[in-house]
Amino acid sequence: MRSDTADEGVRIRLELAYDGTDFAGWSRQPGLRTVQGELEAALATITRRAAAPPPTLVVAGRTDAGVHALGQVAHVDLLPEHLAALGRPRRGQPAPPGPDGLARRLTGIAGQAGDLWVATSAVAPAGFDARFSPVWRRYEYRIADAAALHDPLRRRATLWHPGALDEQAMDSAARSLTGLHDWAAFCRPREGATTVRTLLEFCWRRDADGVLIATVRADAFCHSMVRALVGACVAVGAGRMPAERLPLLRDAGERGSEFVVAAARGLTLAAVGYPPDAELAVRAGQTRARREAIAGSGLALTDPSGID
Amino acid sequence: MRSDTADEGVRIRLELAYDGTDFAGWSRQPGLRTVQGELEAALATITRRAAAPPPTLVVAGRTDAGVHALGQVAHVDLLPEHLAALGRPRRGQPAPPGPDGLARRLTGIAGQAGDLWVATSAVAPAGFDARFSPVWRRYEYRIADAAALHDPLRRRATLWHPGALDEQAMDSAARSLTGLHDWAAFCRPREGATTVRTLLEFCWRRDADGVLIATVRADAFCHSMVRALVGACVAVGAGRMPAERLPLLRDAGERGSEFVVAAARGLTLAAVGYPPDAELAVRAGQTRARREAIAGSGLALTDPSGID
Repeated sequence: MRSDTADEGVRIRLELAYDGTDFAGWSRQPGLRTVQGELEAALATITRRAAAPPPTLVVAGRTDAGVHALGQVAHVDLLPEHLAALGRPRRGQPAPPGPDGLARRLTGIAGQAGDLWVATSAVAPAGFDARFSPVWRRYEYRIADAAALHDPLRRRATLWHPGALDEQAMDSAARSLTGLHDWAAFCRPREGATTVRTLLEFCWRRDADGVLIATVRADAFCHSMVRALVGACVAVGAGRMPAERLPLLRDAGERGSEFVVAAARGLTLAAVGYPPDAELAVRAGQTRARREAIAGSGLALTDPSGID
Repeated sequence: MRSDTADEGVRIRLELAYDGTDFAGWSRQPGLRTVQGELEAALATITRRAAAPPPTLVVAGRTDAGVHALGQVAHVDLLPEHLAALGRPRRGQPAPPGPDGLARRLTGIAGQAGDLWVATSAVAPAGFDARFSPVWRRYEYRIADAAALHDPLRRRATLWHPGALDEQAMDSAARSLTGLHDWAAFCRPREGATTVRTLLEFCWRRDADGVLIATVRADAFCHSMVRALVGACVAVGAGRMPAERLPLLRDAGERGSEFVVAAARGLTLAAVGYPPDAELAVRAGQTRARREAIAGSGLALTDPSGID
């Protein structure tokens, strides 16, 4: 067996993209259209002949309502019963076969509205865990201010800002924030969840159309962190807050009222970085150990999203 | 007066962009939502106090239903009565003022659905005619084939092609077609309208996501010409037609059944090129003379779109 699931089962790695506009976020919620919900419903359809509970998904980045993804990664463990229902693959071939197999079937069922696309599916390397193995997550945020071309075709993934923004001030402010810090001032707090993260990269540029694009990359993010960081930079770019204020806010450690969290619409999970295959299991173990240390510290881990 | 309209009136040049998905094309049609219809309704609202017929628009490229535009150009002649209703501008300033004036008001009224954006408005230079002055129109066509990343956020402006396409064969075929020719084989024929055009540029490339992008530039296009050219290249890229066949089809001069016209969805009017201001009137006169020569030749000019 090539992965760490139950005997004879396989772990499948999926890459997917979605327009988050008409989804109530990634996570399954009763009565709401979510990415996880749509995909798990499709998996249940595909494996409906299996005498086993339908498979469930684990994802790298649990995006909020309205947030998009281009390079999202998830995994699903398929039991022997699921594989039998799928049609067991031939010896020496991945099970089920790549883009023409599960990815294509999931897109065919869950992607009928056009806003969800499963790009690839393949047997995951040993030790792979979509959520615990990543070494970084990278997000992009797009803002068309008064100086930018407004392309209506990209309005679903771009914030339209009525005034002009100073991209140099925003870029300076962003770059001054990177490093290993406690981000409580930029997170929606959750009891028992750490807010310490390493912000690896944060910068602003304008693309060929003059659209402001933030690149935000960290080992992991706490809830609403990217949108809070973007909102703080917008306050700087609009001249409402000096750039030097941002590190001070961060180090004060408490959410203030000097900026607002930027809208979900402009945010896209661009890519997730995994270590080389040989280090996947070690990385996942480190992340899990960190989670258990927090849980064992006496703080109730009320919401595990504190470690994404 | 700085433009060639009636005494004391002004000609305003507009730049605009739209997502064509939910429009029945540019041209006003009773009972249908069109770009011209929405903008002229907004102009009627803005000038509703004027004792004159509401202003009408003239456009560089009359796009079909479902076709998008990023750099569309139009003009509108405002009579003194319209200007009075708008609020007459101060001396020494453009009338009405640029992006914060008419463009912003039009976007505020006609752009409420988010799929239409009037980027700029300014008094046109003397001799300017949005339709007759251009020296070229440039279109782009986007195709995500099996080798490309499928970004659901760009699905409204990208054709999703199920198989793999050979972009080098498509690029060779495209480049072999350029020049001054009769394009009857690639046009929906209209009685009395010439199908002679100069195809200045036609090529294919893949962008960073592997999406195939055609650049098609000509002095003007006849109806459905870009989509027919793209459809012929797709037949080449899919291996259904040799690249060498395209110039032969073109020179045969009749529409055959060897390719299908590509869907509107992938097509965007990217930009319109105008000559230097000093040459605007000469260029418009040349284009008009050509039109009159066709009309005077005894052929009924049943539809003037033959000369866009």
